[in-house]
Amino acid sequence: MNDISAQAATLQWNDQGLVPAIAQDWQTGEVLMLAWMNREALELTVREGRAIYWSRSRGALWRKGEESGNVQHLKELRIDCDADTVLMKVEQVGDIACHTGRRSCFYQRLENGEWQVTDPVLKDPQTLYGKS
Amino acid sequence: MNDISAQAATLQWNDQGLVPAIAQDWQTGEVLMLAWMNREALELTVREGRAIYWSRSRGALWRKGEESGNVQHLKELRIDCDADTVLMKVEQVGDIACHTGRRSCFYQRLENGEWQVTDPVLKDPQTLYGKS
Repeated sequence: MNDISAQAATLQWNDQGLVPAIAQDWQTGEVLMLAWMNREALELTVREGRAIYWSRSRGALWRKGEESGNVQHLKELRIDCDADTVLMKVEQVGDIACHTGRRSCFYQRLENGEWQVTDPVLKDPQTLYGKS
Repeated sequence: MNDISAQAATLQWNDQGLVPAIAQDWQTGEVLMLAWMNREALELTVREGRAIYWSRSRGALWRKGEESGNVQHLKELRIDCDADTVLMKVEQVGDIACHTGRRSCFYQRLENGEWQVTDPVLKDPQTLYGKS
């Protein structure tokens, strides 16, 4: 899976030129995070074999793990029936996808009408981003 | 998990008042689909214990399975660190989440630079929607 430019053209990019991209652990199936990709991010993801998103807050490409080292190696890339969502199976370096230092970003579960934190912080974010 | 109205208020709804919602098989971990929810859809999902989305194309609530019978029973509801994405673990009635009659909507995988269909149609969509 190298040249993606023709395939990228077939996706249904939204008004901002983006599609949601889900990252799923390729072995456990755990959903790690959802972020966004523009066409360049998708093409680079395939070309470099690692998840590269578009940061909406920073308005820039976001090479996942560029600061933390927690790169997501691409194992498989899928699109859905409407071609408006990307699903990646990834190998999560460091076992931490979330900027809070947790394995997955989906660490809050609804229990008795409240969001409960279910997953532990594996690494202090200060350490994760080299700011300690 | 019954009263969600207070919790729903804390989500980061986008400009259209929506968040992406991922449905994942609660047992296999397979990602079945991604659709959208507005606040009412999320509240009804929790209240009725089944996935209810907002159909952007129809501009209406979409009780998943209302036509096909392939309801998604809610087993677990999570949000991510930014509170702008919902993850549901569901029991997929009929083993078919996709309107094409496939188990998952993510049935196209990038192989050698092309989208390849990897999953079989389990049931003819014409039959699925009672139009045969």
